[in-house]
Amino acid sequence: MAAQEAEAAVPLKLHGAAMSACTARVLTCLHEKGLDFEFVPVDLFSGEHKLPPFLSISPFGLIPVLQDGDLTLFESRAITAYIAEKYKDTGSDLLLTRHEAGPAAAAAAVKVWTEVESQHFNPAIAPIVYQYFVASMQGGSPDQAAIDGHAEKLGKVLDVYEARLEKSKYLAGDSYSLADLHHVPYTYYLMKTPVAASVVGGRPRVKAWWEDISGRPAFLKVAQGMEFVAKEK
Amino acid sequence: MAAQEAEAAVPLKLHGAAMSACTARVLTCLHEKGLDFEFVPVDLFSGEHKLPPFLSISPFGLIPVLQDGDLTLFESRAITAYIAEKYKDTGSDLLLTRHEAGPAAAAAAVKVWTEVESQHFNPAIAPIVYQYFVASMQGGSPDQAAIDGHAEKLGKVLDVYEARLEKSKYLAGDSYSLADLHHVPYTYYLMKTPVAASVVGGRPRVKAWWEDISGRPAFLKVAQGMEFVAKEK
Ligand SMILES: N[C@@H](CCC(=O)N[C@@H](CS)C(=O)NCC(=O)O)C(=O)O
Ligand SMILES: N[C@@H](CCC(=O)N[C@@H](CS)C(=O)NCC(=O)O)C(=O)O
Repeated sequence: MAAQEAEAAVPLKLHGAAMSACTARVLTCLHEKGLDFEFVPVDLFSGEHKLPPFLSISPFGLIPVLQDGDLTLFESRAITAYIAEKYKDTGSDLLLTRHEAGPAAAAAAVKVWTEVESQHFNPAIAPIVYQYFVASMQGGSPDQAAIDGHAEKLGKVLDVYEARLEKSKYLAGDSYSLADLHHVPYTYYLMKTPVAASVVGGRPRVKAWWEDISGRPAFLKVAQGMEFVAKEK
Repeated sequence: MAAQEAEAAVPLKLHGAAMSACTARVLTCLHEKGLDFEFVPVDLFSGEHKLPPFLSISPFGLIPVLQDGDLTLFESRAITAYIAEKYKDTGSDLLLTRHEAGPAAAAAAVKVWTEVESQHFNPAIAPIVYQYFVASMQGGSPDQAAIDGHAEKLGKVLDVYEARLEKSKYLAGDSYSLADLHHVPYTYYLMKTPVAASVVGGRPRVKAWWEDISGRPAFLKVAQGMEFVAKEK
């Protein structure tokens, strides 16, 4: 009881920015778990994340960072994995350890499809979002050749997803998991670009999956803050 | 007892190629755990991994793939995480769950530095190894501009490692873990290139760490098979 009170006195502290997709990944996870936390906004425009105080908690000078008492974690996917495991009995069953099909099989599929996001999906989608949003925010114009190349790559990745989603409703099985969650923030931005119609729209199972996972209450809360503050052109 | 015997009857089956760094990552993990397994060689030169029988177990047409009874896993880092968790009480304590510092802190650090390998180290090192080994194996010559650009990127990543290794002997703490293991196969190839002298040699703590983690018996077994079968120029 005393230990629990002490824990409650030091809430989770998330350093990030609402419009950052990597921050949104962790925020979505926190909301899926129904956890209380303190949000510490990091001003990317001032460059504070590239200065020593912040570098001491995030050595690559990137957001997000989670502090849980004495523990400091960076890298969004390490943070979500940590939260999903620490709070595995609370809120959504993100690691599918409570799954009927047996924890081993379902949890293994979460690992596989979480890696697919990290190794195949993210390297294809991140440059597209960067070109449409960040490049223009920084006063440049999007590089169409880079967009086209990565859209083709992303399409090939989503062909694999389309086939997978024929076999199961979600990537790791019949239930929503961390593997699905990790895709949401970048796809949310992608859906605001001209690439969405062919890349997502042209794949009916991917489209239905996207509508499902982006409509969950936890993400709807996070989406409210996901607005690129772009410079006027 | 009966269940254990049944399990022993179906050994782990790893599909891969000895010279593939991603296969070597899993092999090293299996040896660290002291596990028996069956190795099924995949002939990358014949392209069998891009044909339906193999695509049904690995939808991106890549090695390695692990089969554990009815379970099929692809993505090397998902496979190692699966093995490390399933056999957490056998062999090396790769997730640091047996660690004195308390499982939470040590295991969280394993998650963070495993992600650093995946998000920062691998995207910098893989193209260098590709240029020196795969490009020339395919009859081309290495693209020096690509090598230089990625060597600079890798150097910046290793600056963070150099600082980290001042605080702890291994990436996730005082003991060797999966986070260190994941770096070994690509670094092994890098060390055979002209880039090694400045990028690793110029950072004494990284160099000492490399000598330590590459000298472990589990990896020494794997290294024997890591020979690029290059075409004569
Ligand atoms: N792999 C990292 C990437 C973190 C990252 O790139 N964060 C971006 C925001 S989404 C950032 O900090 N950008 C600021 C900068 O690059 O200066 C993660 O998943 O946390
Ligand atoms: N992210 C994957 C990458 C797998 C991968 O790229 N495997 C290579 C060998 S290291 C391969 O299968 N290459 C054959 C090809 O690309 O056709 C993993 O870690 O397993």
